[in-house]
Amino acid sequence: MGLAFDAAGLGAYLQEVFAEVANDFVIDRLDEDGITMRLLVDERHLRPGGTISGPSMFGLADVTVYALVLSQLGRKALAVTTNASFDFMRKPVGGTPLVAEGKLLKLGRQLAVGDVLLFSEGDPRPVARSTMTYAIPPER
Amino acid sequence: MGLAFDAAGLGAYLQEVFAEVANDFVIDRLDEDGITMRLLVDERHLRPGGTISGPSMFGLADVTVYALVLSQLGRKALAVTTNASFDFMRKPVGGTPLVAEGKLLKLGRQLAVGDVLLFSEGDPRPVARSTMTYAIPPER
Amino acid sequence: MGLAFDAAGLGAYLQEVFAEVANDFVIDRLDEDGITMRLLVDERHLRPGGTISGPSMFGLADVTVYALVLSQLGRKALAVTTNASFDFMRKPVGGTPLVAEGKLLKLGRQLAVGDVLLFSEGDPRPVARSTMTYAIPPER
Amino acid sequence: MGLAFDAAGLGAYLQEVFAEVANDFVIDRLDEDGITMRLLVDERHLRPGGTISGPSMFGLADVTVYALVLSQLGRKALAVTTNASFDFMRKPVGGTPLVAEGKLLKLGRQLAVGDVLLFSEGDPRPVARSTMTYAIPPER
Repeated sequence: MGLAFDAAGLGAYLQEVFAEVANDFVIDRLDEDGITMRLLVDERHLRPGGTISGPSMFGLADVTVYALVLSQLGRKALAVTTNASFDFMRKPVGGTPLVAEGKLLKLGRQLAVGDVLLFSEGDPRPVARSTMTYAIPPER
Repeated sequence: MGLAFDAAGLGAYLQEVFAEVANDFVIDRLDEDGITMRLLVDERHLRPGGTISGPSMFGLADVTVYALVLSQLGRKALAVTTNASFDFMRKPVGGTPLVAEGKLLKLGRQLAVGDVLLFSEGDPRPVARSTMTYAIPPER
Repeated sequence: MGLAFDAAGLGAYLQEVFAEVANDFVIDRLDEDGITMRLLVDERHLRPGGTISGPSMFGLADVTVYALVLSQLGRKALAVTTNASFDFMRKPVGGTPLVAEGKLLKLGRQLAVGDVLLFSEGDPRPVARSTMTYAIPPER
Repeated sequence: MGLAFDAAGLGAYLQEVFAEVANDFVIDRLDEDGITMRLLVDERHLRPGGTISGPSMFGLADVTVYALVLSQLGRKALAVTTNASFDFMRKPVGGTPLVAEGKLLKLGRQLAVGDVLLFSEGDPRPVARSTMTYAIPPER
């Protein structure tokens, strides 16, 4: 099955439906194997000691899996997060973009599950991992 | 064991160590049974459709468990979140304070585990639940 | 809304649809507020040091939430577990029944979410907590 | 850093410390990148409809991460599971070995985190994913 968007098309669509946050994120790669997204780290994402806040990591993981779902389903912005799990393993570096590598593990009729590793750009050790479940409302 | 802080003292301490976010939160109750915290919902916590963003819910759950850990351990601001799980069950109401009811399930030497239910004020059905684990660094 | 079963009726129904494991469990209480289930701990549930195995704790938490879903939906044995989270907080006592206190946090059309605390009988400190999500297949 | 065991040595060590369950599992591969373990599916792992039980999947994921921790730390059997998350995505095939692909995401002084995908042998789509955290007791 082909993707419903390429990286540029998906970025434009996120701008359209999710304008509040779309400017914080860049899609570096989108293909059949998954997605690479990047949080453009700004002062408001930081915590004392120059690390990146938990809510900012949550936001990046969540938009990464949402983008994966949209890349398969196309212009159905209705999927909602129902479950999230996180392991925070290392301190992200504050002054460095936070990069998410995501892939879909399942795309069913009712549920989609995506897996994300977060990295401080340039360091191969993950700072966090997350799995997100999205519920896909039944077609009307 | 007595608490290291009362609600007002803990609120002041959060202001001191966590100034970036402390103004978003109010402690309504702190006692041996747990804590009630409230997110003062502002435009930047919202999402289209007037609901509250996932990162804002993450932030409230996280600060709730952090506050519980501090209320027991006192002025040790070093505990770090290592794991988080979330179930998002209902849409929170955007114009309404988001209220967290938290309690500690475990306070060990290395790990503390806290459980949180989130509510839209005035509705008894939880919008989300979360469990957070904090690692407590060994004393030097 | 009334329950579809009382404790005895639900126990009998579990025997009918889940015979392999139903003999391991007893329902102590079932009412609108939740359920109390008990694992009748047997040699095969144990681990070295006389503690109860992780799979046995998983099984008790899972059957507890399944029973809660059945108590609401009646004879629809088709719900399947889609997500589980666990925090293991203390060592359960091997020679003692393991007791689960469960309650439903959400019963939607597609998803049900239940929360469980596990205790070694007679000790008020939880040995583990779990949340389970069940997907409810659409009616045909 | 080299591994403390090769696959055969680790299998023998698991037999020594974990005899109750070690006969259910085979280590197919152990190297710096991770581990492949296999559950030798037996009648007692099954559920109606010929699928594999949740507790059996829990057990395989748990022993997989435990084996990864041991492969790094050597003969320190004291690590204990503190957190587990699961997404169950497809029905495993009952008559087929269940295969786990595991890797360590973090090995710290206090905590180790491992990630596992479970497959029905011969099908590339994962039936489940799990993350497990082990706490490593401080050296005495």
